[in-house]
Amino acid sequence: MESSKKRVDMWIDCDPGHDDCFGLTLACYPPPPIAVNLLGVSTVHGNQTVDKTAGNALNWLHACGVEDVDVYRGQAAPLVRKAAICPEIHGESGLDGFAFPQPHKGVRTEKAVMAMADRIMGNEGKVTIAATGCLTNIALLLTLFPEVKPQVDRIVMMGGAMGLGNTGPVMEWNIQIDPEAAHIVFESGLDVWMVPLEVTHKALLTQEHLQTIKQMGGPFSSCCVSLLTFFSSTYSRVFAFDQPPLHDPCAMWCAISKGKGFTHKKIRVDIEMASSLTAGQTVCDFFNLTHKTPNVQVCTDMDLQEFWRVMLEAVRRAAERSPL
Amino acid sequence: MESSKKRVDMWIDCDPGHDDCFGLTLACYPPPPIAVNLLGVSTVHGNQTVDKTAGNALNWLHACGVEDVDVYRGQAAPLVRKAAICPEIHGESGLDGFAFPQPHKGVRTEKAVMAMADRIMGNEGKVTIAATGCLTNIALLLTLFPEVKPQVDRIVMMGGAMGLGNTGPVMEWNIQIDPEAAHIVFESGLDVWMVPLEVTHKALLTQEHLQTIKQMGGPFSSCCVSLLTFFSSTYSRVFAFDQPPLHDPCAMWCAISKGKGFTHKKIRVDIEMASSLTAGQTVCDFFNLTHKTPNVQVCTDMDLQEFWRVMLEAVRRAAERSPL
Amino acid sequence: MESSKKRVDMWIDCDPGHDDCFGLTLACYPPPPIAVNLLGVSTVHGNQTVDKTAGNALNWLHACGVEDVDVYRGQAAPLVRKAAICPEIHGESGLDGFAFPQPHKGVRTEKAVMAMADRIMGNEGKVTIAATGCLTNIALLLTLFPEVKPQVDRIVMMGGAMGLGNTGPVMEWNIQIDPEAAHIVFESGLDVWMVPLEVTHKALLTQEHLQTIKQMGGPFSSCCVSLLTFFSSTYSRVFAFDQPPLHDPCAMWCAISKGKGFTHKKIRVDIEMASSLTAGQTVCDFFNLTHKTPNVQVCTDMDLQEFWRVMLEAVRRAAERSPL
Amino acid sequence: MESSKKRVDMWIDCDPGHDDCFGLTLACYPPPPIAVNLLGVSTVHGNQTVDKTAGNALNWLHACGVEDVDVYRGQAAPLVRKAAICPEIHGESGLDGFAFPQPHKGVRTEKAVMAMADRIMGNEGKVTIAATGCLTNIALLLTLFPEVKPQVDRIVMMGGAMGLGNTGPVMEWNIQIDPEAAHIVFESGLDVWMVPLEVTHKALLTQEHLQTIKQMGGPFSSCCVSLLTFFSSTYSRVFAFDQPPLHDPCAMWCAISKGKGFTHKKIRVDIEMASSLTAGQTVCDFFNLTHKTPNVQVCTDMDLQEFWRVMLEAVRRAAERSPL
Repeated sequence: MESSKKRVDMWIDCDPGHDDCFGLTLACYPPPPIAVNLLGVSTVHGNQTVDKTAGNALNWLHACGVEDVDVYRGQAAPLVRKAAICPEIHGESGLDGFAFPQPHKGVRTEKAVMAMADRIMGNEGKVTIAATGCLTNIALLLTLFPEVKPQVDRIVMMGGAMGLGNTGPVMEWNIQIDPEAAHIVFESGLDVWMVPLEVTHKALLTQEHLQTIKQMGGPFSSCCVSLLTFFSSTYSRVFAFDQPPLHDPCAMWCAISKGKGFTHKKIRVDIEMASSLTAGQTVCDFFNLTHKTPNVQVCTDMDLQEFWRVMLEAVRRAAERSPL
Repeated sequence: MESSKKRVDMWIDCDPGHDDCFGLTLACYPPPPIAVNLLGVSTVHGNQTVDKTAGNALNWLHACGVEDVDVYRGQAAPLVRKAAICPEIHGESGLDGFAFPQPHKGVRTEKAVMAMADRIMGNEGKVTIAATGCLTNIALLLTLFPEVKPQVDRIVMMGGAMGLGNTGPVMEWNIQIDPEAAHIVFESGLDVWMVPLEVTHKALLTQEHLQTIKQMGGPFSSCCVSLLTFFSSTYSRVFAFDQPPLHDPCAMWCAISKGKGFTHKKIRVDIEMASSLTAGQTVCDFFNLTHKTPNVQVCTDMDLQEFWRVMLEAVRRAAERSPL
Repeated sequence: MESSKKRVDMWIDCDPGHDDCFGLTLACYPPPPIAVNLLGVSTVHGNQTVDKTAGNALNWLHACGVEDVDVYRGQAAPLVRKAAICPEIHGESGLDGFAFPQPHKGVRTEKAVMAMADRIMGNEGKVTIAATGCLTNIALLLTLFPEVKPQVDRIVMMGGAMGLGNTGPVMEWNIQIDPEAAHIVFESGLDVWMVPLEVTHKALLTQEHLQTIKQMGGPFSSCCVSLLTFFSSTYSRVFAFDQPPLHDPCAMWCAISKGKGFTHKKIRVDIEMASSLTAGQTVCDFFNLTHKTPNVQVCTDMDLQEFWRVMLEAVRRAAERSPL
Repeated sequence: MESSKKRVDMWIDCDPGHDDCFGLTLACYPPPPIAVNLLGVSTVHGNQTVDKTAGNALNWLHACGVEDVDVYRGQAAPLVRKAAICPEIHGESGLDGFAFPQPHKGVRTEKAVMAMADRIMGNEGKVTIAATGCLTNIALLLTLFPEVKPQVDRIVMMGGAMGLGNTGPVMEWNIQIDPEAAHIVFESGLDVWMVPLEVTHKALLTQEHLQTIKQMGGPFSSCCVSLLTFFSSTYSRVFAFDQPPLHDPCAMWCAISKGKGFTHKKIRVDIEMASSLTAGQTVCDFFNLTHKTPNVQVCTDMDLQEFWRVMLEAVRRAAERSPL
């Protein structure tokens, strides 16, 4: 059936975070005929503490008019290393720029790893895991519940870099803060897709995009503009980017579109865990110089026009449904 | 009350393994007035696959006449690295030397980590975790269920070395096969006790000890003699030891006696995870040259006479109860 | 004086190697009014053994009609690691593709490091060191004769990469084969210029360039075409490059032009020495995320048109002088 | 001839340092019939700066009545790492405790590495190199002048540890301050002897030894007592040793006696260079668990009585010759 081909059963693991939010919106309002069956949302330490990212996920789903998706709190710290957060980009709340009203329901008490195992094992079809934070939760899922593997269609994650990084010379934040988790996921044998900085740094939010959102009007539009303006200002101050990159929605779109519209190549990616200079680097053997077996689909480009079309359309639909 | 002071609520995580078995026996038959309340036994990959170590634990508890303790299967592989087993010492079964009858009950289906979390959280008093295998299960317990920490009295583990190792130049097997797990446990902030090779290499099984067991007579005595003879022969062949060291019972005795009879010092122990030469080394800063905060009670000696007295007495009592 | 500003007192350390040779030619025939005062040429292990690279340097200088420059044999192996050579690109001789006649004079017996120290210390003005091989010789020079430092104007080297490498996922050959030497040079406090793969991979030898050389006519032109055809074929086979990059002449041009025509930025570059995945990576902190003090001028682009103009003009002039 | 068997042609590389001095004395006054033909003394950074250690060597040889041995200044810093010195043990001068008169001659201007190469190559017989400091000079000698290797009889060095270290958890100072140099020497293929802490920590200077020296009377005896009293007090304060170990004379005696009186075993020793926890560890594979080819004669014990006999006798003879 055509329709089933267009349905994606999905679990989202994220650390909202401004760009995570727009990834969530895209998953909640994918472009027809694509349908996303969202089994649940878990959050992880990263852009802020896991308590804050869980609250932000809840707030944002509510703001998007999505009430039937549960949010689970995941791991508060990396597997092996000390925890780090990123308030310089996402603010003290992890989602600075807008004061959200209290949502009607709370974070579920079940642990994220348990919930993921339960929902994925219990789902009829295979499940896509979209990861827009670090990989601690997913690594633990695969470690403690290896029996979920045959039920996982693919793991699509935002993170890594082939060249220069964003939070270290050659390191991207989501991998850098928990390299051992990334290693576990990348070595899992599953169909892992990596959407690295080389792609996401092309998804720059222009004034034109912002104007389009503004012109939608209404409180959700204002909320989005406030958040993106905050994000834009921190990105400008910290990274000297004129326009901030919407990292996470790129990976989300890759998960939803099943890679359609993306240039990608399956290559060997090793996670650097030993070096004090480069721990968290995704060492990408693009030309297979090491002759190791490829393990990750690495995206190197995407159809930007299509991405912005579906992204802005998702925002428009969320604005229509928003209770703000 | 004196009696409560002498009671140890205990969970055992092990990978039997010949010496693990004698550790189990010591926990089942501790010297009065000490009483061990054994909440459960979990097994882990190590001396053999986790399936085999689980079966061995079950067989051995049955052989010891202990039917009221459940056995749980734990992790099949290290957190980050590839699995390794040690058939050259413990044989293909992990407990070669004796053909055990089928026990009446099987391994519990609950995962070891879940069972540990549940039983430890549900116990009235604080629980001692005795670990005589690698630390994968315990690291996952602390990672996924950090809320158990206040319920853990101490973790006493066999493993590590201050100087020369046994399966690498300066590496001991239990730490070497899962250094990241050891790191997680050693950094947990809990009261961690390490019984290293420097102690266990003193607990050598002499012909006199073997003779004592032999003279107990009966099938359990024969079983013990068979197992120890096998263990002795592999230790002689692989390590050129005239007498094999009973590693694990040393740590078990330390757990049961709460360190009484042991010389120990709280020092800084870092786990080497980065070096390809020494991954799995327990880097012991005995003289505090790094000025780091001590994190582990490292035993450097023990009262050998007392150890052998309680060990052989436990075997004698198990022999009396054995259904073999 | 204008003229003195245009004069470069230079020592060349190289491992010819096809592209090294064209670098030498450029140094021998720089575009007027630039004048290069070539104090000497030393060779190092790398593309082939040091004996072969020394012979190649001698052969090539002779072929270019340059008889007044001495060639010194340098180190046969890296400082700390095992030696590696690259016959798959440069052939068994290190300069396959043409059978050179015996030159009239031999390699000097003085060791390269001693000769460099002596000539640089004895030179009236400051000296530019152009390095188109690995940095073993230069590292030893700076280690054993730190007193030469004030006499060194700059060190310009071909090597390293900001992103993907050529002989490892993120490693470039010249750095990869002796990372410790690179570290010593990069930490020397001298004015170090790095011309990485990101620049040299733009200096692709096209059919048009080859045609231009061919049309010069005569034996030297034929020799060049033979060498470049060999180089082109190995580059195609090993790296699947349609056109081979003339790495070394880029760095030579940067040394001769004193950086004119190059886009460059002084950034922090650390040499990875500890990781087994990435030893030899030039970890480039382009955005100064580590807040370390910049130590290397890293070139990111060059005026290609100017480069090819001066390169081909140098070949033309060498062809006129060649005794072949 | 018996006599030639008893002659040791020797070069000493050291960093005096209190214990280095007593090593020098032993080399100058070996027990008959052993004769040491001392070709020269070079010094290296370590216990203090190389300028200070050179001055100390000169002062001490003069104090011992030895005027016919030249002193050369060697490397001021390690090959790859930053320099470190040890004033907490040896004081600001590197030889605190006695104010030496100005010696009649100065340090030679020739560089130590050049002098070593020249004298060793020019010597009729093979030469023993005794190293009681870090191995920077010797590593450079072997790197720049590999042709000396057939002329080197053996290299005997004080340094390393099989277990606990003295300036790091498992690191000994001489190796720790220049691990790459140690690696070069240990991989040289030469007959390398290592006298580690396990031996030198047995050579403790007792009150009885000190009393013996005191009773010799005269200014040299007083000088020795002053120096050893200083050394004893710093060792007591920094390491809490009741009696300070005379490290360097142990290695010197091993070099002079050609290993006679020492228990030793040729094993594989790898130098840890990658780990930030243990860089500089001598990873000793005593039981050949790695199956690598042994490369170093590691001493594990020595005849202490004989050592102190020859050591004190050397002091007595120096006292007789001293111009102090």
